[in-house]
Amino acid sequence: MKEKFFSGIYPYIVTPFNDKGHLKEGVLGDLVDHLIHKGVHGLTPLGSTGEGAYLDWPTKRRVIEVVVEAANGRVPVIAGVNNLTTHGAVYEAAETEQLGVDGILAVLPTYFPISDQQVAAHFKAIARAVSCPVVLYTNPKFATWDFTIDTLKVLVEENNIRYLKDASGNIGKLMSIVTAVGDRIKIFSASAHIPMFVFMLGGVGWMAGPACLIPEQSITLYEMACQKRWEEALNLQKQLWPLNVAFQRYSLAACVKAGLEMQGFPVGVPLPPQKQLDSEGKKIVEKILRDLGALNI
Amino acid sequence: MKEKFFSGIYPYIVTPFNDKGHLKEGVLGDLVDHLIHKGVHGLTPLGSTGEGAYLDWPTKRRVIEVVVEAANGRVPVIAGVNNLTTHGAVYEAAETEQLGVDGILAVLPTYFPISDQQVAAHFKAIARAVSCPVVLYTNPKFATWDFTIDTLKVLVEENNIRYLKDASGNIGKLMSIVTAVGDRIKIFSASAHIPMFVFMLGGVGWMAGPACLIPEQSITLYEMACQKRWEEALNLQKQLWPLNVAFQRYSLAACVKAGLEMQGFPVGVPLPPQKQLDSEGKKIVEKILRDLGALNI
Amino acid sequence: MKEKFFSGIYPYIVTPFNDKGHLKEGVLGDLVDHLIHKGVHGLTPLGSTGEGAYLDWPTKRRVIEVVVEAANGRVPVIAGVNNLTTHGAVYEAAETEQLGVDGILAVLPTYFPISDQQVAAHFKAIARAVSCPVVLYTNPKFATWDFTIDTLKVLVEENNIRYLKDASGNIGKLMSIVTAVGDRIKIFSASAHIPMFVFMLGGVGWMAGPACLIPEQSITLYEMACQKRWEEALNLQKQLWPLNVAFQRYSLAACVKAGLEMQGFPVGVPLPPQKQLDSEGKKIVEKILRDLGALNI
Amino acid sequence: MKEKFFSGIYPYIVTPFNDKGHLKEGVLGDLVDHLIHKGVHGLTPLGSTGEGAYLDWPTKRRVIEVVVEAANGRVPVIAGVNNLTTHGAVYEAAETEQLGVDGILAVLPTYFPISDQQVAAHFKAIARAVSCPVVLYTNPKFATWDFTIDTLKVLVEENNIRYLKDASGNIGKLMSIVTAVGDRIKIFSASAHIPMFVFMLGGVGWMAGPACLIPEQSITLYEMACQKRWEEALNLQKQLWPLNVAFQRYSLAACVKAGLEMQGFPVGVPLPPQKQLDSEGKKIVEKILRDLGALNI
Repeated sequence: MKEKFFSGIYPYIVTPFNDKGHLKEGVLGDLVDHLIHKGVHGLTPLGSTGEGAYLDWPTKRRVIEVVVEAANGRVPVIAGVNNLTTHGAVYEAAETEQLGVDGILAVLPTYFPISDQQVAAHFKAIARAVSCPVVLYTNPKFATWDFTIDTLKVLVEENNIRYLKDASGNIGKLMSIVTAVGDRIKIFSASAHIPMFVFMLGGVGWMAGPACLIPEQSITLYEMACQKRWEEALNLQKQLWPLNVAFQRYSLAACVKAGLEMQGFPVGVPLPPQKQLDSEGKKIVEKILRDLGALNI
Repeated sequence: MKEKFFSGIYPYIVTPFNDKGHLKEGVLGDLVDHLIHKGVHGLTPLGSTGEGAYLDWPTKRRVIEVVVEAANGRVPVIAGVNNLTTHGAVYEAAETEQLGVDGILAVLPTYFPISDQQVAAHFKAIARAVSCPVVLYTNPKFATWDFTIDTLKVLVEENNIRYLKDASGNIGKLMSIVTAVGDRIKIFSASAHIPMFVFMLGGVGWMAGPACLIPEQSITLYEMACQKRWEEALNLQKQLWPLNVAFQRYSLAACVKAGLEMQGFPVGVPLPPQKQLDSEGKKIVEKILRDLGALNI
Repeated sequence: MKEKFFSGIYPYIVTPFNDKGHLKEGVLGDLVDHLIHKGVHGLTPLGSTGEGAYLDWPTKRRVIEVVVEAANGRVPVIAGVNNLTTHGAVYEAAETEQLGVDGILAVLPTYFPISDQQVAAHFKAIARAVSCPVVLYTNPKFATWDFTIDTLKVLVEENNIRYLKDASGNIGKLMSIVTAVGDRIKIFSASAHIPMFVFMLGGVGWMAGPACLIPEQSITLYEMACQKRWEEALNLQKQLWPLNVAFQRYSLAACVKAGLEMQGFPVGVPLPPQKQLDSEGKKIVEKILRDLGALNI
Repeated sequence: MKEKFFSGIYPYIVTPFNDKGHLKEGVLGDLVDHLIHKGVHGLTPLGSTGEGAYLDWPTKRRVIEVVVEAANGRVPVIAGVNNLTTHGAVYEAAETEQLGVDGILAVLPTYFPISDQQVAAHFKAIARAVSCPVVLYTNPKFATWDFTIDTLKVLVEENNIRYLKDASGNIGKLMSIVTAVGDRIKIFSASAHIPMFVFMLGGVGWMAGPACLIPEQSITLYEMACQKRWEEALNLQKQLWPLNVAFQRYSLAACVKAGLEMQGFPVGVPLPPQKQLDSEGKKIVEKILRDLGALNI
């Protein structure tokens, strides 16, 4: 395996659907092309914002094919693997790698509660099913488990588990993780965190939905962080924050999809029964995008 | 649609898998036959205990086909429909009905949180996709939503929404539901509840995992309740309770599958990363089954 | 210690306050007298409904004195001991016993989370500080701990720990407790439970706020249960349930105090910042009381 | 009221007790003197670490008197007001101001859940009972409420509500608060946050338990932040973090008290049933303090 090092801005690309819930492949391809032209460092289809938890494997497979083909090697593609069973996740991970991605993001949704030992075994099995780098994902708000420091210590022993995307919003937990295993695993910020603070803790990038809407501003923030221009980064971060406030108040996928529609990408709405953005929410998102120079109309 | 009225003991039938996670169709058919011989009033494949949340549609389709074929009209089959999207649930519900079931059990797992309005719209859409009776299912411990009384008032307006299986364990909530909409919707007990108390509140049956292991005892309990022999029912209920205590302590599917293995049905274990029953748990389940006369060996 | 056995209806007597938050002793005495005339089997001041968690020791001491004096030995008084520290609880328990109560109800509110071992040590210390019987109290909705079966097994070894009031609303948990330690500890129902089902499990009484408003109906329910007239009890229980529905929807203390005001006892409102009953809530409580024959006006 | 502006390092001073739970006044005075000599900018008795939630008013009054007398005007004293009722909090706030403090920290523990409107009314009443500045406190992990942005917008209208100490650990929430009302209210960091990030967001100080143990290092961190020497601050913050990891793992008050004992202040242990630090925890705290140069022995 040739060593690749993932870093920078990786939009959590949305999955466009028509009214019947069918994938709009053309729109997805256009969005990929658009984001690459804007300069993003990589793409992450099938994350939370990509509604990875809501799709069956044939749809997910098609999403990956479209994104890989549209990206055409210009930037790395790290695709989400999101399955409740270890058998299913191992299968999807191996298939996903065969489709030409550069890495996988391993997401574990839950129905019945599980223990730390089972969490560790699940992610180990996925890592061993592929040769590409694996990004661990955790979101304690949407699942019944979270990585303990001890579980992470076990998992970083796997050669290709190299990244962690923590969506807890608890920056102290992240600092504790960096303190404990920061030399073995690299951190991507989620939008539940304040990206510039994750960058200060050594975070290598931001893997998130907002970058679909404000790719250039996200890249600028990342570059300021790389150059340790913290005062400027802080100033920009403050300007970008109202978008996160809107995401927290309304649903993430609903906000990003509504914003992309405003920007001219007919990506549709999140699959029901997910929340849709109401007219008040749309006005708020529109105003924020306009204030950030992310709406030309 | 000829009116059917579902009542009595409906085992939440487990889904047997081999080590690779593939369905063991023969074992499933044998189990169906065994339970019908024991006198159960109906069968519910693909509930929680049936690991319905963990399976893809082709596997679920095959489970339904095997159960319907093995049941061969001897008892009603109410199959679980378990999908995170409304599009998916509507599709699976319609397909499930085509496979010859007598009713469906509508389960809604969640990833992102949803609102009451969306919950109502989801179940309405399912009900309208089929002509058979629909059993509503809620388990606030495993999902981020629960039916409010107001949501139930909306849903009972649908002609074929006729049953509710509440797995909250909160008997007071159930009494409030009976008080508000008890004339419009019938209640099935879950094992999170004490079945005989649900029977006392007017519950029409028990739809649950334990009945896979102790079908005869469950039937007896139900019959005592039908005849309002409450003292005897209470006495039997107390004898059966240690099985529920084990289920609460260990995982439900793991206990039922381990017990069925002891009874001679090689159903395997729950799909990882679900909890497996450890040797201590097996001893406890074995002792309980033996005490209840549910192990011949 | 002369053996006493507590059973029956023990109203969780409210604490009447004026607008400045001062105790209205006369009203409290009148209420005691009224409830005893109605036939209650005992009285429990300073429980949850009695706002025991909100009062300082001098006020609590005065409440106990007034209740003991007004009861004048006609019925047992079991007073709440509610303190965050073991030193404080031990002191208050000993003082409370000196004031002439017949038993104490030990409530443990929490600020920082605590472990099972500390829970056990706390209640042991209280039990050893008094010679009267102790009622254990748990409400996992309002505290960060709950009794495990293992903790209860330790606590029932204390000679004077004889009763448990579980306010979890989880009747299955209660059945598991009865199964494990039911021969060593007696159960009182809380209003979070359906009292007649707790009676069926062997519960010896109902210790709760609603009995302040409907003492006669509560006594009738208890007597039906003693005589195992389950069908009649069930019928009465259903009639009484709307009061519980109101309590769940609004705050318990607010409902009971508003109802008592309607019945002619100027007990005031719960101490702010606790929720007050709004005009809609008052109408609902008034209608329920009228339907139950508990309002003469 | 002469304008005072609070900023810098305010140790959450512990409350020393003997084995019987009685205040050790001499030790408390010594600790005040020690911390002032170390250069702290102010003192906060009766916060979480000060076990303010566990003490009765006479003890709290004595704590304030001792701290005010020992501080002797050298640094501001902001004392915690911690009472479940509005009547009680208003009384204690007014009394506390009379004892000569420079500001109060308003903490609202809960038993029954309360609504946003009641939260707002409670803090307003406290603010109006005093003329000194008020620090709002929230810890959603230990109470059933949290400040919404809307509630804060109401509260900053009060002339003397000028500071907020948020102990949620959710830095994104804090950034949203700064975005919404940052011009009207100043932020103090809690140890649940990473202080240097709160400083970057404009935070004016750190009000927390760890500063009892490492006052000089805390002051240095604050000074680096004032001078925007972010790289150095980040480096120091990383060195200090293991102390926070220990606090998260064990109890806060237990860690600080154990560390102070090691430093020669016989402050005793947290009042039972709070968690005590076990021997393993003591070794960890000792090693961390030694590594930070905070143990001379």
